[in-house]
Amino acid sequence: MGQKLVENAAGRAVVTEINGKPAIPYKGVAQYIPEGRKAAPPISSCACYPADGNKVVKDIKTALEKAGVKDGMTISSHHHFRNGDLVANAVFEAAAELGIKDLMWFPSAAFPCHKPLIDHMENGVVHHIEGSLNGPLGEYCSYGKMKGLGVLRSHGGRYQAVQDGEVHIDIAIIAAPTADPFGNATGDRGPSACGLLGFALADSQYADQVIVVTDNLVPFPCVPWQIQGNYVDFVVVMDKIGEPEKIISGTTKITKSPDRLLIAELTAKFVKEAGILKDGFSYQAGAGGTALSFSIFLEQMMREEGVKARFVRAGSTQYTVKMLEEGLTDYILDGQTFDLEGVRSMRENPNHVNTSPFTSYNYHGKGNFASMVDVVVLGATEVDVNFNANVVTHSDGKLLHGIGGWQNCLFSKCTILPIPSFRDRIPVIVDEVTTLCGPGELIDVVVTERGIAINPLRKDLMKALSGSSLPIRSIEDLKKEVETICGGVPAKPKLGDKVVAAIKWVDGTVIDVVHQVLPD
Amino acid sequence: MGQKLVENAAGRAVVTEINGKPAIPYKGVAQYIPEGRKAAPPISSCACYPADGNKVVKDIKTALEKAGVKDGMTISSHHHFRNGDLVANAVFEAAAELGIKDLMWFPSAAFPCHKPLIDHMENGVVHHIEGSLNGPLGEYCSYGKMKGLGVLRSHGGRYQAVQDGEVHIDIAIIAAPTADPFGNATGDRGPSACGLLGFALADSQYADQVIVVTDNLVPFPCVPWQIQGNYVDFVVVMDKIGEPEKIISGTTKITKSPDRLLIAELTAKFVKEAGILKDGFSYQAGAGGTALSFSIFLEQMMREEGVKARFVRAGSTQYTVKMLEEGLTDYILDGQTFDLEGVRSMRENPNHVNTSPFTSYNYHGKGNFASMVDVVVLGATEVDVNFNANVVTHSDGKLLHGIGGWQNCLFSKCTILPIPSFRDRIPVIVDEVTTLCGPGELIDVVVTERGIAINPLRKDLMKALSGSSLPIRSIEDLKKEVETICGGVPAKPKLGDKVVAAIKWVDGTVIDVVHQVLPD
Repeated sequence: MGQKLVENAAGRAVVTEINGKPAIPYKGVAQYIPEGRKAAPPISSCACYPADGNKVVKDIKTALEKAGVKDGMTISSHHHFRNGDLVANAVFEAAAELGIKDLMWFPSAAFPCHKPLIDHMENGVVHHIEGSLNGPLGEYCSYGKMKGLGVLRSHGGRYQAVQDGEVHIDIAIIAAPTADPFGNATGDRGPSACGLLGFALADSQYADQVIVVTDNLVPFPCVPWQIQGNYVDFVVVMDKIGEPEKIISGTTKITKSPDRLLIAELTAKFVKEAGILKDGFSYQAGAGGTALSFSIFLEQMMREEGVKARFVRAGSTQYTVKMLEEGLTDYILDGQTFDLEGVRSMRENPNHVNTSPFTSYNYHGKGNFASMVDVVVLGATEVDVNFNANVVTHSDGKLLHGIGGWQNCLFSKCTILPIPSFRDRIPVIVDEVTTLCGPGELIDVVVTERGIAINPLRKDLMKALSGSSLPIRSIEDLKKEVETICGGVPAKPKLGDKVVAAIKWVDGTVIDVVHQVLPD
Repeated sequence: MGQKLVENAAGRAVVTEINGKPAIPYKGVAQYIPEGRKAAPPISSCACYPADGNKVVKDIKTALEKAGVKDGMTISSHHHFRNGDLVANAVFEAAAELGIKDLMWFPSAAFPCHKPLIDHMENGVVHHIEGSLNGPLGEYCSYGKMKGLGVLRSHGGRYQAVQDGEVHIDIAIIAAPTADPFGNATGDRGPSACGLLGFALADSQYADQVIVVTDNLVPFPCVPWQIQGNYVDFVVVMDKIGEPEKIISGTTKITKSPDRLLIAELTAKFVKEAGILKDGFSYQAGAGGTALSFSIFLEQMMREEGVKARFVRAGSTQYTVKMLEEGLTDYILDGQTFDLEGVRSMRENPNHVNTSPFTSYNYHGKGNFASMVDVVVLGATEVDVNFNANVVTHSDGKLLHGIGGWQNCLFSKCTILPIPSFRDRIPVIVDEVTTLCGPGELIDVVVTERGIAINPLRKDLMKALSGSSLPIRSIEDLKKEVETICGGVPAKPKLGDKVVAAIKWVDGTVIDVVHQVLPD
């Protein structure tokens, strides 16, 4: 298939068509202003739904049939169950039994547990996947084996794509830890509790047909109704929809690596010296080892300085919950819960607020929360000397990670990447990133175990840290030192001409593509 | 203006065009199935909104100008402030100062406090009003003085009309007791607290431009965000947006009229004898004197029988709050709060749940809550021998009341109208209602101080009450007795040919029209 490539505003050669639809090349940060109208789902009528509100049908197969499943349709699902999801595989198993072919799977993310989807792609039930591809599915795509193009979107970009009608969901599958027969659903309770269900919000609002699958059916009303039954067509009860221990960890753990602890501490000190740590401030950090350790250093500083946050954007964990309960923050604005304490707190504390990609990340809204956050701490697989960063491919070119909320968070007032300067003796700071996910102009600071590089565009930060005892260095300097340690510039990955995936920017334009990895 | 009328499925001659747009005549309950798609608002971009989330502008006039106010636009507002609203008048005052003409006002309801709108209609700033017209505005419309046709919709019908694109809102005004600079807003706190803001939900979701007006600006985030800032364009701070004592009563009061107490008691006894009063049941009753007294009789019976409700649909008051707090119901599903206790409870108790016309009433959703309610108690201005009912006009033909959630509630499993058999010596039970608002097939029981009439269509209720000591009578019987007391059949109102308003059914079709009242 001849793939026409054009150079976008970031200088990357990108596709102009994705899976049969035209695609707009990236035009620069805040340069593309959409002119269309939002997707318009069909108007329903209560006359076509049971008056007693009971939408329960026998099983997934029946629900798919009643929803009118047909060849070539798009079926969506969410990833709140992470690697413990039992629903998505059951859905495609049922579709296979019904003899359906060429489906597009549109998950908010795929995990290693979704490996059976490879068989469904091999036997033609599934044509391709648009969504974050972690692990085996990412590798499958990387080697060019998927029929269609992979499309990676941020959490906000996924909401934007559905809202804008870029992706039309025929049937949405919403795995729900608790639900009522009307389809009201919540993630904050039940044997498969995952906290919230925000990643399924767009699906519920815009899909033609919506199926809620639960293993904990309660009498109407299911309160809270994170997903509103008024959007739901069918409810299915399964014995078990997830493996609780893989959905959520009992407890989240901080890193023990001395290097990562150092990076986390440097990051926290930077935040303080930059003047960000003051009463009413806000921050966002994930639940990875380094980010978690950063939060703990920050918390210590907040206590020492007597500083209180207005809100913490999370990925909630036992640590953020403790801060809320001890009054170190007024609110947790939570996008996903990572441990049992997070789930409990969300259920019990009205100041632990359920957010969604619509409120927090959708770039095609009337603003979103991300740009109001004072400081955000994010990871990356590579950063280049222009502060451009990669979060989806490894230096070998393999597509192994999703974007998550990463691109959306870059709009924070101060974006910091605390990362090791090399991994497995391969430099992380490079001349040019393999895959461009985030434009350098939005990335303000890179913190490594060997020093801190401030983006020269941020003259204010340069000035604030001018007399600092922190190891502030230029990014070129850091790169040189790392190359010396690792024995030179890393080898370029062996890539083919074929494009196997597109990376969308938050506004739906194409910021980069992923090329096929050639076998050794 | 030649108004073409056609007979609809209820035998009423109705208009086929409303304010320049085609209108569909009523086709019968559950007979009209829409085939279109929902309204599609323009796609926004964060690039066009302040990154720091601060959308505050100087005043209403500035907000209207920035929102691009133009002649002929539709401006909406909500009625959660009831007769204490200070915002809507200020908006049209500002529009007048800007020299704008021919606006359509689309309130969820108008109250006597909105009398200044008559001046704006006289001087051309406002062309006409579509929305419930109580008091002076209703009278103005009744006499044929309004340029356009009045359009009365139920709460659910208003959501449906906006959702389906039947009414396009150019600029929505949302008066908010508490809001943040981003536009997140809540009604459950602040000096003008009104409880919730559900009537403004459709406006926020579908209007091109949304202006939040508050007198209690708090730092981001305003939690809860009953209205989401991601839908909001501008925020205006006013000194005072409402008269608290007219927004909400300090305490709601039960009726002292012996007749009405009798009606309330008969209604409660009917509910018990019909077998509806059992564990896990649900009911809805308003905050009017009779409805409130019914609730109190019902509560006593629940205590005596040891029966607990699953949910109470409300109009919450101190009485429903007490039931929730004492464990007589698991949930209050609240559509509007009527007193200070209702507001407090909604703010404090997670089982006092904020609902909206979308969840509860929208007939063009995938079901709604109304049809799941076991029994609902409603008022009426007239009922006829076929159980058809009127809720908007008086026997003199004057349009003096809105529909509220009345039509939507008719879908309950058992709809009871507890009404006096006559008012001011004018019979309430008549041969044919002046204005048809609710088809008789949905009205199951009429309870008067002279006896209870069961709709013959409800053979199950007839059977359940067959051996009852309650005064069960035919509706014809009741009518005859009342006519004897009142001195015969009431005089027909003096009406002209001109149609001054249309009454919409829950599906957007026209169930009846209101004719001009001729001066005496």
